[in-house]
Amino acid sequence: MTSPALSHRMTVTDEKSPIIPDILDEDTVRIITVSGVEEIGRNMNIIETKDDIVVVDAGFQFVGEESNAPGVNYILPNTQYLEERKHKIRALVITHGHLDHIGGIPFILERIGNPPIYTQYLTSLMVAKRQEEFPHLDPVNMNIVKEGESFTVGKMRVKTFPVTHSIPDAMGLAFETKHGNIVVTGDIKVVTENNQVVVEERQSWERIGLDNNIALLCDSTNADRSGFSASEAKVYETLEEIIRTTRGRIIIGTFASQFDRLTSVIKSCELLGKKVVMEGRSIKTNIDIAITAKLIEVDPKVFINATDMADYPADKIVVLSTGAQGEEFAALMRMAMGKHKSIVLTERDTIVLSSSVIPGNEVAVQKLKDNIYRQNVRIINYQGSHVHSSGHGNAGDLIWVHQTVKPRFLIPVHGHHYHLKSHMFAAVENGFPRENIVVPDNGSIIEIKNGTEITKLGVKIPNEQVLVDRFTVGTRQEVVLRDRMSLAQDGMFVIIATVNAKTGKLRKSPDIISRGFIYLRENQQLLSEARVLIKRTIEKYTENMNPLDLEYVKDELTDVVSGFLMQKTQKSPMVIPVLIGL
Amino acid sequence: MTSPALSHRMTVTDEKSPIIPDILDEDTVRIITVSGVEEIGRNMNIIETKDDIVVVDAGFQFVGEESNAPGVNYILPNTQYLEERKHKIRALVITHGHLDHIGGIPFILERIGNPPIYTQYLTSLMVAKRQEEFPHLDPVNMNIVKEGESFTVGKMRVKTFPVTHSIPDAMGLAFETKHGNIVVTGDIKVVTENNQVVVEERQSWERIGLDNNIALLCDSTNADRSGFSASEAKVYETLEEIIRTTRGRIIIGTFASQFDRLTSVIKSCELLGKKVVMEGRSIKTNIDIAITAKLIEVDPKVFINATDMADYPADKIVVLSTGAQGEEFAALMRMAMGKHKSIVLTERDTIVLSSSVIPGNEVAVQKLKDNIYRQNVRIINYQGSHVHSSGHGNAGDLIWVHQTVKPRFLIPVHGHHYHLKSHMFAAVENGFPRENIVVPDNGSIIEIKNGTEITKLGVKIPNEQVLVDRFTVGTRQEVVLRDRMSLAQDGMFVIIATVNAKTGKLRKSPDIISRGFIYLRENQQLLSEARVLIKRTIEKYTENMNPLDLEYVKDELTDVVSGFLMQKTQKSPMVIPVLIGL
Repeated sequence: MTSPALSHRMTVTDEKSPIIPDILDEDTVRIITVSGVEEIGRNMNIIETKDDIVVVDAGFQFVGEESNAPGVNYILPNTQYLEERKHKIRALVITHGHLDHIGGIPFILERIGNPPIYTQYLTSLMVAKRQEEFPHLDPVNMNIVKEGESFTVGKMRVKTFPVTHSIPDAMGLAFETKHGNIVVTGDIKVVTENNQVVVEERQSWERIGLDNNIALLCDSTNADRSGFSASEAKVYETLEEIIRTTRGRIIIGTFASQFDRLTSVIKSCELLGKKVVMEGRSIKTNIDIAITAKLIEVDPKVFINATDMADYPADKIVVLSTGAQGEEFAALMRMAMGKHKSIVLTERDTIVLSSSVIPGNEVAVQKLKDNIYRQNVRIINYQGSHVHSSGHGNAGDLIWVHQTVKPRFLIPVHGHHYHLKSHMFAAVENGFPRENIVVPDNGSIIEIKNGTEITKLGVKIPNEQVLVDRFTVGTRQEVVLRDRMSLAQDGMFVIIATVNAKTGKLRKSPDIISRGFIYLRENQQLLSEARVLIKRTIEKYTENMNPLDLEYVKDELTDVVSGFLMQKTQKSPMVIPVLIGL
Repeated sequence: MTSPALSHRMTVTDEKSPIIPDILDEDTVRIITVSGVEEIGRNMNIIETKDDIVVVDAGFQFVGEESNAPGVNYILPNTQYLEERKHKIRALVITHGHLDHIGGIPFILERIGNPPIYTQYLTSLMVAKRQEEFPHLDPVNMNIVKEGESFTVGKMRVKTFPVTHSIPDAMGLAFETKHGNIVVTGDIKVVTENNQVVVEERQSWERIGLDNNIALLCDSTNADRSGFSASEAKVYETLEEIIRTTRGRIIIGTFASQFDRLTSVIKSCELLGKKVVMEGRSIKTNIDIAITAKLIEVDPKVFINATDMADYPADKIVVLSTGAQGEEFAALMRMAMGKHKSIVLTERDTIVLSSSVIPGNEVAVQKLKDNIYRQNVRIINYQGSHVHSSGHGNAGDLIWVHQTVKPRFLIPVHGHHYHLKSHMFAAVENGFPRENIVVPDNGSIIEIKNGTEITKLGVKIPNEQVLVDRFTVGTRQEVVLRDRMSLAQDGMFVIIATVNAKTGKLRKSPDIISRGFIYLRENQQLLSEARVLIKRTIEKYTENMNPLDLEYVKDELTDVVSGFLMQKTQKSPMVIPVLIGL
């Protein structure tokens, strides 16, 4: 990504603010699920008391088919509520370094008054790395939290505790309020062995469970899956087994943010005397970060360049590559297409796709697999082998967390409505009182009074989607997006006619400019008929019209020509008449 | 769908025909995989000898993201090869009634000279039903083949044999040629019990295995899955169990073409004294067809109208509904959205999604699930319960078919390249000689001489995609589709300026018409700057230009304005200058 100047920021305040009362007493805590609870992505929650606001996470969402927003890059949380209350914002706390939790920071931080960021070390490196792409922004006030450390912002004490997710330095949060704590899990799974939660995991959560916890905001991503989640340790074993036993070169495609998996593979290679080639910028960047953060200590001789591969036997080479989601220009796709400058696939290679398929990427991954199989290279993937596990807990993990943290109220977050409700159903089946569960929407305001009374207010905070459309950041401009979708389906049809202002007659046959409609070269007959119709229609209306009202003629012409094109082609291009009176 | 006049058919012959030699001897048989072997959809294969051509299937493909063709309705097989050899075409044989095998018929039949169609009864009803939507077409010459019957077209004898798929009356084909038979499976799975193929299945295939089979064209859709496929009988048991034990109303969403599953549910309801409500046109149509075809005999009192549901206890009601893929206007989505005219969901209802999610429909199904869970209705789906099985066999099924039919050559068809190669790898692992397997592409020409020598020719038949774009049928017009994609991303920017032909000066400030680019109301500053730039640019070039060359000025203006807009917004709208010299 280049460095946008954000020169076309639009006001986000064109949505009429609903009247939201201030919190006037010390006994009320407000929880706002800004976004991320009707989608996967753009996670942001707010914890607010009479005196303080703390924001948890500032993710963005990549734009998929889901969003009906062609041409748009990202969708951000709507920060209008925060912009109007900058003076109360004490901190932005980031639970972990995934883009659905940090991706919005460069677009949002300044708007909400540049509050200090609190997060653990690895996350801070990832935030800093992203900020480098936006050099015009003010420097970030970054506060690095050590594992399990507590800190105070405004009057609010915030406990942190280590949690397990698919990235290191992930932490959960407990906000101490007058009548008890609000616990935010962030993204979590629990580590189990033989269906028992392991000791470290248990200790971290049990410590939090000792407090009086009035509410738990808890990850719901995989709440519709039963039992405990699959083990990541098993993935490391499987990958090590593959590295040990496979003949020929191994190419492992995975997410660059899977730090522990990357370092596990590298350690296996070191152990087994193999060499590691890193392919793709984000893999290299993150392994650099991992070394900086001391997540791994490894003999640098383990790493070789792709260009030096010929110096080693194929059996000694493991390539760690980006592109397991079928990204068009990533290293793996370039290899699959035979376009990689130093890695040419052969039938003796084995490719491991150590990742799931992210919804929306199915077609891209299908193309990747087709291209790899064109080279007769076999793929090992999660469907046939335990080479991937999710970073999000199944219902079994979540129930265990509920029962360990023992909150009075449960607020499922992080997922589509279906996931949140699946979370609710699973909790109720396991004894959580249904009346103590609040399933929020984007923008929901939940208040807890005296630690015992929970209410979802009838009003929501402004929650229109905020879109990043290259340099433009603003709420969804329906007219622009609707036009794009219409142009995509049926194209456009511009009519240019010069009208003699005195006689109302056309000065010459009208010009037609059409794009994305039908192939004009093959449809000259249609064009001729259209020209005749245009001339006849204009002159029918301008005859005896005095003075000439070209706006009126344009409207009529649009209707007539649209109807004609629809009848002839069953398509509705955008008809734009340009009438010039002379 | 309305009834298109197909008034804008374009020539499909603009692709330069490669030179493909005729078959001159009796010892050669040609197999052409027209399409359906680099995709799921638009299946069509050709069996050709010196004297005869027989076409197998004429499917279409729904347009997904995959095809990069916004605004396009369907993709058809390219029939140019057949159009040039109409005189040799003896028949179109249809293996079964799914749209990826029959959907292309209305668009293709006339072009290839209206050959007679041969197929089994149920398929003939489905073809006829579709033809009704195209009343301008000539009547179809339909020949109904009884189960297991053989027939002769031209000099070619065609054996048929019953196969198992997710629709009744599915058949495989064996084409008798001088040196042996070419067997085409169509879409298949095999029925097993306790990992043994059941007797009827075994007998049908073993009869074919008695012949001298030189080649087998075999379904590859699920070739990447190991073992035998899951049983459909188990699905019926599961559904009956659900119908018997569930309290409250049951709503089952499934594919309308799952005749046996629909009739199985209806029979279960009759047995258990429940009433069936049919929701959605295609379900009603197909149950009518099923009754006509005597696939089911049922007391008509089993069926009630949705409007009469209130007369029965909720426990007695089973709704069969369309829309399990999240189709926007289908019955199930209308229920989920609270927009169905007679079915209002309540927490006591249970919804069964008896279907998989077709690739490309993930987002729509997610929305369906979200909307259903908004009503607090629980969903039972294939992820948690055995309520769906695929109609396509796993590698286990396919290997069994190979070993039973015992062909010399194997040609995997029906799937993406990845599926075809997975099929090949599975066959080789089970002892099929790799050199006897030919993996085709769309348009591949495979010749077998004397029943023993197989060659894939270096040339392919014309194989550009043929698109149905409302009334227009023709090969992909890259320029039109590229324009649509570009307009979808960045919109357009039309500049209208009238230039004084004598002085080269603008007569007034230029007009700008923009759609789908940025929200102009919020960007007046950008527009003013653009107008100044336009005026300055035009007048810079027209100054001292004699005679006025407005085409040249237009090109320069396009470059300058595009660069300006890119710099300011990082977007590239389609810039269209209209300069009028007066």
